[in-house]
Amino acid sequence: MEPVEQYRKAVQKLLSDRAERSQRSNSQVEAQTIFDTERDHYQLVYVGWRRNGDRDYGCLIHLDLKDGKIWIQYDGTESGIAQELVDLGVPKEDIVLGFHPPSVRKLTEFAVG
Amino acid sequence: MEPVEQYRKAVQKLLSDRAERSQRSNSQVEAQTIFDTERDHYQLVYVGWRRNGDRDYGCLIHLDLKDGKIWIQYDGTESGIAQELVDLGVPKEDIVLGFHPPSVRKLTEFAVG
Repeated sequence: MEPVEQYRKAVQKLLSDRAERSQRSNSQVEAQTIFDTERDHYQLVYVGWRRNGDRDYGCLIHLDLKDGKIWIQYDGTESGIAQELVDLGVPKEDIVLGFHPPSVRKLTEFAVG
Repeated sequence: MEPVEQYRKAVQKLLSDRAERSQRSNSQVEAQTIFDTERDHYQLVYVGWRRNGDRDYGCLIHLDLKDGKIWIQYDGTESGIAQELVDLGVPKEDIVLGFHPPSVRKLTEFAVG
């Protein structure tokens, strides 16, 4: 399997597993996985209403595949998605911390993009 | 063509047209259309960096198709996406203002969901 196809599967599994865990712990708010496999955009978004009547809406994770690399466009997790991708076997040079400017990216072990 | 298939096309066209206009007026920030036609989630998201070095990230519009209706989950436009859908010929009873709680939705001419 080509690396990009492996990354596509890894990204979808990572977001699906997290959505399932969120849904189990809070059934009120929908944990939506949004997978655009044509444009290679992948998101986990929360949509719903809390018990107190407040609206809950927001993207937790947004990953893109671009030129064979995984771009982390947004990461609202505490643990950090980059480390989860590394733990899944993705080499750091194939991960771009898109939420950092390029000047900061080059100070890290991850790709500049 | 089935109404749901028409809605799918209308929603994608509306978001694509707006993304194209945004991209023309600001080439620095990427206007991403994210279309998950399997789960029927549709988004327009801005991703990039401004000239002053600030990060620009956020969802402008999020629409879902559910039970034959178009749900507006998030609308960050000034003009209002509901009216644009009505102008495209979508009946109000097939549009759900998901960002309002059901108690408010039933006071409008739009669907409760």
